[in-house]
Amino acid sequence: MNANTPPHPILVDGRWAQASAPTGNFHAYDPSTKQALAERRYPVSGWSDLEAMLAAGKRAAAAMARLPGAKLAEFLDGYAAAIEARADALVAAAHQETGLPVEPRLRNVELPRATGQLRQAAQAARDGGWRRPTIDTKANIRSQLGPLGGPVLVIGPNNFPFAFNGIAGGDFAAAIAAGNPVIAKAHPAHPRTSALLAEAAHEAAEAAGLPAGAVQMFFHVEPETGLRLVADPALAAVAFTGSRPGGMALKAAADRAGKPIYLEMSSVNPVFVLPGALRERGAAIAAELQASCAMGAGQFCTKPGIAVIARDEHADAFVAELQKLTTAAAPGVLLTPQAPQAVADAVTGLRDAGAELLAGGEIPADATAHAFQPTLLQVSGERFLADPHALQSEAFGPVCLVVVADSPEQLQRIAQAMEGNLTGSIYSDTGGADDAAHDALEPILRTRVGRLINDKMPTGVAVSAAMNHGGPYPATGHPGFTAVGMPAALLRFAALHSYDNVRPQRLPPALQDRNPTGTLPRLVDGEWTTRDV
Amino acid sequence: MNANTPPHPILVDGRWAQASAPTGNFHAYDPSTKQALAERRYPVSGWSDLEAMLAAGKRAAAAMARLPGAKLAEFLDGYAAAIEARADALVAAAHQETGLPVEPRLRNVELPRATGQLRQAAQAARDGGWRRPTIDTKANIRSQLGPLGGPVLVIGPNNFPFAFNGIAGGDFAAAIAAGNPVIAKAHPAHPRTSALLAEAAHEAAEAAGLPAGAVQMFFHVEPETGLRLVADPALAAVAFTGSRPGGMALKAAADRAGKPIYLEMSSVNPVFVLPGALRERGAAIAAELQASCAMGAGQFCTKPGIAVIARDEHADAFVAELQKLTTAAAPGVLLTPQAPQAVADAVTGLRDAGAELLAGGEIPADATAHAFQPTLLQVSGERFLADPHALQSEAFGPVCLVVVADSPEQLQRIAQAMEGNLTGSIYSDTGGADDAAHDALEPILRTRVGRLINDKMPTGVAVSAAMNHGGPYPATGHPGFTAVGMPAALLRFAALHSYDNVRPQRLPPALQDRNPTGTLPRLVDGEWTTRDV
Repeated sequence: MNANTPPHPILVDGRWAQASAPTGNFHAYDPSTKQALAERRYPVSGWSDLEAMLAAGKRAAAAMARLPGAKLAEFLDGYAAAIEARADALVAAAHQETGLPVEPRLRNVELPRATGQLRQAAQAARDGGWRRPTIDTKANIRSQLGPLGGPVLVIGPNNFPFAFNGIAGGDFAAAIAAGNPVIAKAHPAHPRTSALLAEAAHEAAEAAGLPAGAVQMFFHVEPETGLRLVADPALAAVAFTGSRPGGMALKAAADRAGKPIYLEMSSVNPVFVLPGALRERGAAIAAELQASCAMGAGQFCTKPGIAVIARDEHADAFVAELQKLTTAAAPGVLLTPQAPQAVADAVTGLRDAGAELLAGGEIPADATAHAFQPTLLQVSGERFLADPHALQSEAFGPVCLVVVADSPEQLQRIAQAMEGNLTGSIYSDTGGADDAAHDALEPILRTRVGRLINDKMPTGVAVSAAMNHGGPYPATGHPGFTAVGMPAALLRFAALHSYDNVRPQRLPPALQDRNPTGTLPRLVDGEWTTRDV
Repeated sequence: MNANTPPHPILVDGRWAQASAPTGNFHAYDPSTKQALAERRYPVSGWSDLEAMLAAGKRAAAAMARLPGAKLAEFLDGYAAAIEARADALVAAAHQETGLPVEPRLRNVELPRATGQLRQAAQAARDGGWRRPTIDTKANIRSQLGPLGGPVLVIGPNNFPFAFNGIAGGDFAAAIAAGNPVIAKAHPAHPRTSALLAEAAHEAAEAAGLPAGAVQMFFHVEPETGLRLVADPALAAVAFTGSRPGGMALKAAADRAGKPIYLEMSSVNPVFVLPGALRERGAAIAAELQASCAMGAGQFCTKPGIAVIARDEHADAFVAELQKLTTAAAPGVLLTPQAPQAVADAVTGLRDAGAELLAGGEIPADATAHAFQPTLLQVSGERFLADPHALQSEAFGPVCLVVVADSPEQLQRIAQAMEGNLTGSIYSDTGGADDAAHDALEPILRTRVGRLINDKMPTGVAVSAAMNHGGPYPATGHPGFTAVGMPAALLRFAALHSYDNVRPQRLPPALQDRNPTGTLPRLVDGEWTTRDV
């Protein structure tokens, strides 16, 4: 590219426009080849871009609040179709920018997951049950959940270029379905993918007749500008998926401004393998664990970063099997040029805290891609309990730490020392020998994780109404909400709107005497019903 | 009382015990007579008391998580009955400590409200629908809302000694019904009332067989000790009703610790009276406004602190009528010795920001009770818009500010300058002359208030499933939740618990294939149903 070629435009107030006063520009990398993708450059937006987006988002919020759910659904469905129409270009761009395999991952798994989420969000918007319409005929008070009154900032992570993208993923879909405009921040590791998605979103928004500022996107900002955006009164809420340091800085800014922020920050997803299970099927579980840990080169929010077992001869065999498998595994591609060193630093941190390296542990010297060796570490339960905080640091790569408890009782204390996590798994034997140990462990783990799993690894986050991709702090910022699964994910982007003695014709359709669809469940005088009042 | 008589015991870990290392003690006042009630003294708890409560609360949380909702309901119903059995003593104590009238307020309104809330919470706990049980049979993932895993700190305000008391009010009832232990902080203005309630709670908890630390209470702490309590990892969540400065300090501590905190802080509850309504029934509305403002001496969270009208001849008559009524009104009793000066300071603040005093404005020189004159101020719309923050400061007493807009358009801009409030009211004429003005105003107000009201004053918060006693920041800390109204109030004290591939016999009853009651609504494969799976 010629040095004078302008960088990629941003999507602001219903049109693609050059950043008005960028503070710089950047390009992506191909992590499979370590090559800079310097032919395309993207702006680092200054405050004036964000100010324009806030103003347009605020106008759009007022207009969107008047749209029926069916109109939001029309956009979401249209957007899913527009993504499918661009599937080849999207998959090619995402593969180049992330190194993730074209098939099955990008084309057959993640892209259908993203379009499926958009369609599930459309269904939730159309159906409207998520709003919990509630009618008290005696007091003549009626309530439902409604939009927040301003745009939602969605900041996506580096590891899911489609399904968690700020302009296309679950947070985006949920915020829109709840009736809010979105200001998306593309992840700077995959700007081309994000731009292609934004083109599809823009096209679908125009086709559905959404207001101009309903869907906006910028590519990057300096940290202090991003914090200013989060604190601005015109912004209604924030959804962030990414690292704990980044999330904590955003949380502090949002908290000071009294703003709802939903964070999905970090998690080591402990897997407890009880003695009977080790005895019964230790080798099979070791293979599952190693595969789950290595999946996507270990760059999943739900990667099992810690396995906990109790010391016995089956435990030794389990660790030996894991060591063998880990040593034999090939390094996957890490997402960014910074990633290998970040993983190396995390491994150093674990070793400094007392973990022993059993396999891997290095950046491969001869790698043509950004990579890290599949890595296994081990630490005693006693040592773990001496520094549980450091030993729960997330290594965002193919790294697993096995904690070997001295006794079943110490295993419970290890569970008690666990911070909030997205998931926790318990493997137990099928014959009942582990039942007592399970029953002692389960209540401890239950309060520390969002999703409690039996006999299964945590990777693979089904888009299910019953999913909780969430959990207690510091895995997220609030234990009551999930980032994945419709309609529950919409609840994050809603305000409770009560109408007291409001004249009938002024009520929103869902709260009028007549059930607007005949099928909408409403809590009328204490009873869930689809009847008219 | 003899100087050596020990202060009142605190309720800790299932028994009444002397504070272990109090940092001081205090007594209440009779605000009707300004007399100190020095014969009864209450401890200011040190950290050791709170530490003991946290440990007991943590143990109780583990035990309560295993209790069926019916057991929690048994306690809540029993507690309501135990309060009724002590009604005479409770009403006498509350009257002495708050100056609120025995009848109808304390005996006929607030006490039945408190017991009614406990019984509604019991019903919600028994019924279980608030947990939103969700079953995905295909993925075999199931979820419901569950308790938080630790005790909830409930800090009640000075103005409702029964219905919002930390040991008996709506937050207490909701936290218990959701399966969490409560550590209550009594309000130091009514310690005897709180102690009597705690006796009833303790008796009911023992009768129902709740674990020892399910219900605990202390009377007071130094601010820094309170902040330490809020930040402690053993505490699961905080619910606070009170002043904005107090709430903001607690919020900062909770936010830093990543802890859910629900605040009900302050609100001026704007009342917009449109021109047609002023013309049609201005005098009647003025009487309603003055009565609502003076109710409880203006010490209601939902007191209408601001009325907004547009300048015309009917507006002048409205203000003149208000001035007449306010001047003629008698001062009510304020709740604490500090209250009169606090109201005086707030009035000074409003005047400094440009408001003109039309009636009252003084602490009555000859008052035998703690009191403040019913007070009316007026400010132009232009002046209001020049300093909307200062002119929205809450005066927690019988004070109302009338904002007179120059034009209907300026009236909308005044609405846009409103901060988050619990309520907002719109009065419009019955003939339709105000419809256009209403339709322009409503969307602006809707995003700024929790409860939107037509043709009615905001005081009188019905305990209704459709109530929202909440609203956008800074009225509260989160726009999605209500402090009043079952079952919605329970949602604040819950974590989302997903169960993935969990063996059938290990699932909580509500998530097993068989519907445990046959009547529990569950979202099964996308459909709300009471059927078995």
